[in-house]
Amino acid sequence: MMNHKTLRAEKEINVRFSEVDSMGIVWHGNYATYFEDAREVFGRLYHLEYLYIFEKGYYAPLVDLQIRYKKAIRYNDRIKIVIEYQDSEAAKIIFNYQILHAETGELMATGQTTQVFLNPDYTLALQVPEFFNEWKRLNGII
Amino acid sequence: MMNHKTLRAEKEINVRFSEVDSMGIVWHGNYATYFEDAREVFGRLYHLEYLYIFEKGYYAPLVDLQIRYKKAIRYNDRIKIVIEYQDSEAAKIIFNYQILHAETGELMATGQTTQVFLNPDYTLALQVPEFFNEWKRLNGII
Amino acid sequence: MMNHKTLRAEKEINVRFSEVDSMGIVWHGNYATYFEDAREVFGRLYHLEYLYIFEKGYYAPLVDLQIRYKKAIRYNDRIKIVIEYQDSEAAKIIFNYQILHAETGELMATGQTTQVFLNPDYTLALQVPEFFNEWKRLNGII
Amino acid sequence: MMNHKTLRAEKEINVRFSEVDSMGIVWHGNYATYFEDAREVFGRLYHLEYLYIFEKGYYAPLVDLQIRYKKAIRYNDRIKIVIEYQDSEAAKIIFNYQILHAETGELMATGQTTQVFLNPDYTLALQVPEFFNEWKRLNGII
Repeated sequence: MMNHKTLRAEKEINVRFSEVDSMGIVWHGNYATYFEDAREVFGRLYHLEYLYIFEKGYYAPLVDLQIRYKKAIRYNDRIKIVIEYQDSEAAKIIFNYQILHAETGELMATGQTTQVFLNPDYTLALQVPEFFNEWKRLNGII
Repeated sequence: MMNHKTLRAEKEINVRFSEVDSMGIVWHGNYATYFEDAREVFGRLYHLEYLYIFEKGYYAPLVDLQIRYKKAIRYNDRIKIVIEYQDSEAAKIIFNYQILHAETGELMATGQTTQVFLNPDYTLALQVPEFFNEWKRLNGII
Repeated sequence: MMNHKTLRAEKEINVRFSEVDSMGIVWHGNYATYFEDAREVFGRLYHLEYLYIFEKGYYAPLVDLQIRYKKAIRYNDRIKIVIEYQDSEAAKIIFNYQILHAETGELMATGQTTQVFLNPDYTLALQVPEFFNEWKRLNGII
Repeated sequence: MMNHKTLRAEKEINVRFSEVDSMGIVWHGNYATYFEDAREVFGRLYHLEYLYIFEKGYYAPLVDLQIRYKKAIRYNDRIKIVIEYQDSEAAKIIFNYQILHAETGELMATGQTTQVFLNPDYTLALQVPEFFNEWKRLNGII
């Protein structure tokens, strides 16, 4: 039995006026931006930036996005987005997300994204790219 | 055994320049807007607009969003978003979506949204609101 | 004295739910999208698409955007965006915009965008590109 | 002759992936969001938040937006948005903006927004609201 390292990052943001809809709550589509903010922080922290993936010859588009909305987020709320890497044997990058109210700690939303690897000719990479296995080893995941 | 009516609507749109990311493909978060476009067309066609729901004393926020990305959508692509109502006995509004390439008919993405009913005091409606049962009857669903 | 042709295009749209802010009016930043919608219609009508400009070896970024907001646009309003080409001797593309309420004809906003031509090496084109002079001749502007 | 205080605020942000267009540069419409980010920081710093204005019985929509784009901003660029209050005798709130590259200090864009005051019945406030004169006095502007 093995204990794998948990790779996790966080980002706090203030909800923008332009992110709030006419009901006074964050428009649901904007959560995709919050998740992307978190992925970018994760990428910088663990050196898995979009640009690094490009350099290695791959593009990693999302193929699946799921969001569960628990509580309405309002203008001026400060929220904390927590992102955690979920390992998979497939040639995929899976992240789980939690959006918390930064002050109360309440769980506002959860979500998951799945990315695959595309080769430079836009065909699907069927095997885990070598650079990504290397990344997993460096980070104690495998 | 009963045959229920299928409630379905469609909207065609041209992908906007501002919807495309630096890889030249539609940024994944914009699909939430496409789904909303389709919900609005559905609402007008079957008289289930946001404003109608408000008038009836409810607000129907999304609690769940799922998107499966099949093929990259590009700038200038013309796409057709197909929305179909999926009935549920719970106090929910569930829609299934397909995004097709308008010319080739290729399936570009699928998705699902789930909405619940909130009472004016923002508490969850546990029963199907009477106006919504009436709507179902009028549309041959129940 | 010469009469030059007026090049003009129009696009009608329904305001999207996601474009409306917590005051129930279209968020001001979304007008840039409306103008871009109009430019795309203009581009298709007069064959001055972004992609055509790229093919000719140029990129035409905005260097100036001005928007005057006259009346609040609301959710479910149907608006008409009118775009008109304004000729200039400089190496620029200037458009003027009007946003009208599609039903009442009321003037909701006006605006102007200025684009310049960049060479493939991202330096500024100081002369009007030959393809653009040709475009002007074909369209009876010069 | 009087020396009036300069009211100024700054915000640094990393450009988001979703803000970049297919040319690899920030889509021009997103600058409106950057300016709004800066206004929110200014509002918190000098206590002129949207919500404060609402409490005082006014709404302060934009009536004019101008943006001058000087240099392309790219993905991963860190930018600094500087906002400065420009006093006016009219019943207006005018801000001037500069967007600088956070590392090099290069000037990437400038802009200006003008807001007016609407009364609760959405008519235009012709006089400077008393709370705003008070705000000016407190901040050494008048």
